Amino acid sequence: MATTSKLVLLRHGQSTWNELNQFTGWVDVPLTDQGRTEAARAGELLKEQNILPDVVYTSLLRRAITTANLALEAADRQWIPAQRSWRLNERHYGALQGMNKAEVREEHGEEKFMEWRRSYDTPPPALADDHKYSQFGDERYAHLGEDLPRTECLKDVVTRLIPYWYDNIVPQLAQGKTVLIVAHGNSLRALVKHLEGISDDDIAQLNLPTGVPFMYELDDTMKPVTQARFLDPEAAAAGAAAVAAQGK
Amino acid sequence: MATTSKLVLLRHGQSTWNELNQFTGWVDVPLTDQGRTEAARAGELLKEQNILPDVVYTSLLRRAITTANLALEAADRQWIPAQRSWRLNERHYGALQGMNKAEVREEHGEEKFMEWRRSYDTPPPALADDHKYSQFGDERYAHLGEDLPRTECLKDVVTRLIPYWYDNIVPQLAQGKTVLIVAHGNSLRALVKHLEGISDDDIAQLNLPTGVPFMYELDDTMKPVTQARFLDPEAAAAGAAAVAAQGK
Repeated sequence: MATTSKLVLLRHGQSTWNELNQFTGWVDVPLTDQGRTEAARAGELLKEQNILPDVVYTSLLRRAITTANLALEAADRQWIPAQRSWRLNERHYGALQGMNKAEVREEHGEEKFMEWRRSYDTPPPALADDHKYSQFGDERYAHLGEDLPRTECLKDVVTRLIPYWYDNIVPQLAQGKTVLIVAHGNSLRALVKHLEGISDDDIAQLNLPTGVPFMYELDDTMKPVTQARFLDPEAAAAGAAAVAAQGK
Repeated sequence: MATTSKLVLLRHGQSTWNELNQFTGWVDVPLTDQGRTEAARAGELLKEQNILPDVVYTSLLRRAITTANLALEAADRQWIPAQRSWRLNERHYGALQGMNKAEVREEHGEEKFMEWRRSYDTPPPALADDHKYSQFGDERYAHLGEDLPRTECLKDVVTRLIPYWYDNIVPQLAQGKTVLIVAHGNSLRALVKHLEGISDDDIAQLNLPTGVPFMYELDDTMKPVTQARFLDPEAAAAGAAAVAAQGK
């Protein structure tokens, strides 16, 4: 009988800009109190269902890191190794960063709004380096030099995330470890697209709720042998519907 | 002019067993609310004084990890790499783990009490593997096999900590990185003893306060070129006196 590995994905809890309905991208906003509660609840779900991560991966953004910290605290797994990478960051939302989603929709129309949010290969306009929400000059991305993203489409996220998946995460899964990745709506959509082989068109329909862990069992070729299973299906369904309705 | 590196040491904030005045050792108790406040304050001190860690090291115990998480959150440095090792754990307090310090002092007398707490090379009696506060069978130490500590004196802590110092921490300092270590009263005493060349007798007099970061500047031989500087000297003095008075 072939062995499988467990991969648990968790989108960070509600952030201050989720609450304000603003495009966030790489802007490093904190969780709200609700987001912190969601994070702890995610950890309790892991513990209740005896899904015990051996290693955790996060982006470099505090809303993901705090979510991971609070979830692991609630799961009694704070001591596991933690790895962080910009390759798990949220999609860079370009010039939309800091803008209100409803206002963008009103100003630019439904079609453009949905293209920026859900088109696979059309990035929003680039963010200027002197903009207050630019990451230009941020120490944590200094090593990227001129390759620092100024905007990204989902395809760009796939391109920068999948090398990290193969080189850093897959080797842990191949050893039979249970891996937890705490990241963002679009970096997780990029990974799910890869895992499930979702087409460039169909990925537009995938909305991930915040704060509800979901798990895959992967075979030794790192393909899912089960459908993604939300650890709290009811909360997940309500959350995904809320994401789909953003800006409305 | 020779360059120096910055090493910041931080003892975890108050834990539930600090509050109960119990020997803790490797028992994995959480912070109190006061301890969480201390941890955040430590991070604010780092930020105010522009001491920005590039990497953080912690033990495998939650009171150190939570302290590090909260301090880095307050310092806006959550994104730095984190490394954890049992070699930074508190001294294993053997059969004293879980016992009230005042009761141990009353039962065994001042001399024995102080020997167990401050003697360099006399460990307390070993903790039985079937004791409720034993770490026998704890997944995070499984790789130690029969070498799992059942009790430790400070000399034992020096012996298991210094290899980690040289092999993991010194290389970061040698690159000029600012290193933060969040650990425990006795694991930090072991490191300070090594750094300052304190004698086996004199180390008994060193008491470290909880939750107040202190910093060394180290030359390229990893010797301090300055005395340890507490980032909040008043809080440090009050805290050290409180530690010295424990069990009285």
